[in-house]
Amino acid sequence: MTNSATNLRLKLPMACIILEVILIILFGTLVQYDDETDAKLWHKEIANGSSNYDNDFYYRYPSFQDVHVMIFIGFGFLMTFLQRYGFSSVGFNFLIAAFALQWATLMQGFVHGMHGGKIHVGIESMINADFCTGSVLISFGAVLGKTSPVQLLVMSVIEVTLFAVNEFIVLSVLGAKDAGGSMTIHTFGAYFGLMVARVLYRPNLDKSKHKNCSVYHSDLFAMIGTIYLWMFWPSFNSAVTAHGDDQHRTAMNTYYSLAACTLATYGLSAVVAHDGKLDMVHIQNAALAGGVAVGTAGEMMLTPFGSMIVGFLAGTVSVLGFKFLSPILEQKLKIQDTCGVHNLHGMPGVLGAIVGAVTAALATKDVYGDGMADASFQGVRQAISLAVTLGIALLGGLITGFILKLPIYGAPPDTICFEDGIYWEVSLATTPSHFVSMNEHTGLTDLYVVFV
Amino acid sequence: MTNSATNLRLKLPMACIILEVILIILFGTLVQYDDETDAKLWHKEIANGSSNYDNDFYYRYPSFQDVHVMIFIGFGFLMTFLQRYGFSSVGFNFLIAAFALQWATLMQGFVHGMHGGKIHVGIESMINADFCTGSVLISFGAVLGKTSPVQLLVMSVIEVTLFAVNEFIVLSVLGAKDAGGSMTIHTFGAYFGLMVARVLYRPNLDKSKHKNCSVYHSDLFAMIGTIYLWMFWPSFNSAVTAHGDDQHRTAMNTYYSLAACTLATYGLSAVVAHDGKLDMVHIQNAALAGGVAVGTAGEMMLTPFGSMIVGFLAGTVSVLGFKFLSPILEQKLKIQDTCGVHNLHGMPGVLGAIVGAVTAALATKDVYGDGMADASFQGVRQAISLAVTLGIALLGGLITGFILKLPIYGAPPDTICFEDGIYWEVSLATTPSHFVSMNEHTGLTDLYVVFV
Amino acid sequence: MTNSATNLRLKLPMACIILEVILIILFGTLVQYDDETDAKLWHKEIANGSSNYDNDFYYRYPSFQDVHVMIFIGFGFLMTFLQRYGFSSVGFNFLIAAFALQWATLMQGFVHGMHGGKIHVGIESMINADFCTGSVLISFGAVLGKTSPVQLLVMSVIEVTLFAVNEFIVLSVLGAKDAGGSMTIHTFGAYFGLMVARVLYRPNLDKSKHKNCSVYHSDLFAMIGTIYLWMFWPSFNSAVTAHGDDQHRTAMNTYYSLAACTLATYGLSAVVAHDGKLDMVHIQNAALAGGVAVGTAGEMMLTPFGSMIVGFLAGTVSVLGFKFLSPILEQKLKIQDTCGVHNLHGMPGVLGAIVGAVTAALATKDVYGDGMADASFQGVRQAISLAVTLGIALLGGLITGFILKLPIYGAPPDTICFEDGIYWEVSLATTPSHFVSMNEHTGLTDLYVVFV
Repeated sequence: MTNSATNLRLKLPMACIILEVILIILFGTLVQYDDETDAKLWHKEIANGSSNYDNDFYYRYPSFQDVHVMIFIGFGFLMTFLQRYGFSSVGFNFLIAAFALQWATLMQGFVHGMHGGKIHVGIESMINADFCTGSVLISFGAVLGKTSPVQLLVMSVIEVTLFAVNEFIVLSVLGAKDAGGSMTIHTFGAYFGLMVARVLYRPNLDKSKHKNCSVYHSDLFAMIGTIYLWMFWPSFNSAVTAHGDDQHRTAMNTYYSLAACTLATYGLSAVVAHDGKLDMVHIQNAALAGGVAVGTAGEMMLTPFGSMIVGFLAGTVSVLGFKFLSPILEQKLKIQDTCGVHNLHGMPGVLGAIVGAVTAALATKDVYGDGMADASFQGVRQAISLAVTLGIALLGGLITGFILKLPIYGAPPDTICFEDGIYWEVSLATTPSHFVSMNEHTGLTDLYVVFV
Repeated sequence: MTNSATNLRLKLPMACIILEVILIILFGTLVQYDDETDAKLWHKEIANGSSNYDNDFYYRYPSFQDVHVMIFIGFGFLMTFLQRYGFSSVGFNFLIAAFALQWATLMQGFVHGMHGGKIHVGIESMINADFCTGSVLISFGAVLGKTSPVQLLVMSVIEVTLFAVNEFIVLSVLGAKDAGGSMTIHTFGAYFGLMVARVLYRPNLDKSKHKNCSVYHSDLFAMIGTIYLWMFWPSFNSAVTAHGDDQHRTAMNTYYSLAACTLATYGLSAVVAHDGKLDMVHIQNAALAGGVAVGTAGEMMLTPFGSMIVGFLAGTVSVLGFKFLSPILEQKLKIQDTCGVHNLHGMPGVLGAIVGAVTAALATKDVYGDGMADASFQGVRQAISLAVTLGIALLGGLITGFILKLPIYGAPPDTICFEDGIYWEVSLATTPSHFVSMNEHTGLTDLYVVFV
Repeated sequence: MTNSATNLRLKLPMACIILEVILIILFGTLVQYDDETDAKLWHKEIANGSSNYDNDFYYRYPSFQDVHVMIFIGFGFLMTFLQRYGFSSVGFNFLIAAFALQWATLMQGFVHGMHGGKIHVGIESMINADFCTGSVLISFGAVLGKTSPVQLLVMSVIEVTLFAVNEFIVLSVLGAKDAGGSMTIHTFGAYFGLMVARVLYRPNLDKSKHKNCSVYHSDLFAMIGTIYLWMFWPSFNSAVTAHGDDQHRTAMNTYYSLAACTLATYGLSAVVAHDGKLDMVHIQNAALAGGVAVGTAGEMMLTPFGSMIVGFLAGTVSVLGFKFLSPILEQKLKIQDTCGVHNLHGMPGVLGAIVGAVTAALATKDVYGDGMADASFQGVRQAISLAVTLGIALLGGLITGFILKLPIYGAPPDTICFEDGIYWEVSLATTPSHFVSMNEHTGLTDLYVVFV
């Protein structure tokens, strides 16, 4: 199952170690503690009357940890649904997230303003780095099973950079609101990944088709990912909103949107799936669309009522996308979207951007009171931001796809996609594929074996 | 494995979508942000001298998230111990919890007092809704494997309503203390569910007996649920107690009670189980009884010493219940309690109520200082509350059982209980049952196959 | 698979119940609520102008819960990598942690100063008890699969006691800094456990060799443990540091150290593993070494740059240790280190102690400002503390090993190590071993069966 083309003994170490050395050098040159993490600076603030309890750590860190769980457990286990790709799903998720959060700290620091030539870091930069990482992991979902870890690291380098640029344009130049990242995280990550998948289209991928599906326990592992994403999405959307009512309201709106989305998902799944049975793919993914779709408007006065309508629509759109749109994407547009990120992040992200634009356009002083910042033409800013995000994501994904297509990264052949054995030591005695192939070799028909 | 009676193509979508539409309409009519989530109102408080850091979000949200994990991961995975019922355990838990938390917001809002005709929502209503949901999930445990998702949704509608009524009587009318819900959540949920299970008694359930047990990995998945419930129970019991020493003390008392309970559980399990070996059923369930049993008294000056005694007793009672009482319940009382909720929630809940009544009766100004509110006859209030809770739970469960017995909800036949395949698309190639039945059909004895 | 020597029907209940009764009596005699958990005392503070929001609960409890997850889920599931030892890994972890945290409360209370003859407990004592428990669980990793639960409880009694003594000497007598426990937790736990493993050396352990490895899904379960440890390590290292910049900085330094460590781990694993493939053992363990290695210096002005260098080194050392040192330890030094705790906790712990000593020695007023406490000769204090820790751990482990060697605890024979069936009821129909041995008995070669 190994050949020299996919042997990573040199490629992966070189990629990991060179990238980490570059990161360390850049951090050494450019990164400094911010006022709240630096001993000297913070104690100056204490001397000026602040209390240690005012440190932003106490008002952001619990949210950060929830986001962190979403990135490493949520995304990681959501992708373990494939029967023989659990090591890679969790393991490559782990690798590229650990890289991306460091790189994101630098890229976001560059574009969001340096302080005297230095990037200042603290809890908020940690959350923002995790957010940017989330976007990369969404793109990972589109190319899952068909890429080598070296390709994924290269993709991360480029995507994080473009994410930071787009985020800067959307939030700082255009002045849009997008605290939960309907646009900057979900729409960007999804369309970037879909475009990469398009360029990396494999006409003979059906040779690995029998591995591109779940088994009983892999679906249960995936539910760990789903449920963690679902539970902590309120923390995700509220992690960097303004303190006070904003953060409180965002968490609550997201909670209601997700609850309504879940009911819609179960209802629709039973309608469209075979024999009126529920489809795990829908439950694992579409039930989360409600979190994506209030990523922009969640901090606004959307009301629980509005949140539930948005969640209900998002779940509906997402299930229908899995049933009717994904086959078209694959057959007509030649986009092989392994995890269906178009249905979970793409369409719900666009929906979220539109909901955000409309909600912003309808904002009045009467509803927000003193809680309303000046935001003339806010609806228009939001709409333009969606267009910019789509443009950068698609163009960036296109270029990235061609770079990843170079035959130097140890990508798997069409016959061994969705297979851990190509990049991981999997004990022969225990990997499913071995026994299945043994079966093929012996030609025995009375040998039925399946595995843990 | 499918037939028209259990086909849910119409029934489940109708239930989900009609219920969600009703919820959305009622939320649109009746629900408003409270002072801490509404932009205008909160900024008025800011103008009057409050700080954003005073927002209750910061003092309740971490507890809320722990409770949320217990509801969706804890209860969901605890029930995956059945070998072929993992999708349904996690999936139906997810569905009915997502519904129940919305419905509970309305029902609890109605009975706990409206504000100018409106229900006010914020972090505390979110926690309370999750609590009420927990009660429904306890009842789910009693009927696990024998009910359709439509039945479960109908049960949730009724149980949430009665929960809110009972909670109102116990806390507001009778003035009892029950922050961790020994009575309102655990006793109520357990006896409600047991009565439903009694009415739904299936004399021929032994036809599905071979599926009503665990396999190796399903027990490991269940341990994820157990451990999360165990770890976060201190947050559960303290989530809505008064700020300051109350919340701090409740968490600590629960922590000690659970630790002592765990030692008792291991000790007793080795005594009563076969050959001196430990029984996973005991570990998964009885080790949690210590959390249930300090649900009422945890906020009082129970002391770590008292907490440990209570936890020790709860673990003991629970293991003995699994060993000696459950078979009697099934054979004599015809209560088929799939998860043994009587042992984990029923008896420990009643124990908790009694401990609460005694501790409250013994409270003195000397111990509580200014921390003691006026609470004359508090012990008596607590005792009456237990009786009321038992009465409403049993009567409510009885009525609900008869409603669920109507042959219109697509309930599984006796031969296909404890089986995901009836309501979920499970790939034939990977489900255990298929191969076992193939084996049966071929009659080959040299064909031993089991599955992931 | 059972015989009278390993039958625990009397031994385990006696151990659990006697220990718990002793704990309850000692708690009843010696333990009191502290000022922040006692109703009367806290309300005095309120009367003197404190606010309920000042209660330390709000500034420590989220960290405590993260640590709690690491102890029960992180350590518990990390050890489930063995194919037939999942029940014991999670279950014995659960048992000894529940015992150790109670015992640690007493032992740490004794040595860290009593208040009027009483041990005061609150959120900080809870965190410290969990920390001490972590040390015991590290030692558990070294003897995993080869010990009975009674042995483990006896080991916990002694190790917790010595941990408290060592902690007192290091932190209070020598005045060293070690908030994240590079020395007191990791170095201590690792070398204590390694010495126990040395004394318990089993020359015929290769009779159980076929069970001393992972299968596909057991590695995925283990990744749950790994990822939770990785994510929450910033909370671990910062849980008891001073409030304000210290806690904030510690969490951030740990976050960067772990990220860099992960890149190093993946890179090195591909270099040293077979065929350029990644080895799950490295990913599961070495990626965590970065958290261990900043356990001392994390609260200092290490900078993200310094943290990343430390993390990178720790990951490198750890992977190389697994590849080259572990076989030597086993063959030359006769230390059978099941989980490789020497590579994850031993060497990275020593590295962390050295980094801490150097960083402390380099501290200047210019960098710390008013944040610098008086700490003359701090580097020397740190270095002596490492030596003391190693000495107490090795000597303590030696004595403990001989005590555990007494043939009275029901330890497993060499032929049935790494096997749940010896202490747990495992349904014969579903345990892997049954079928494999059936295969052996029948001698049929066309019977390939493996299990969930």
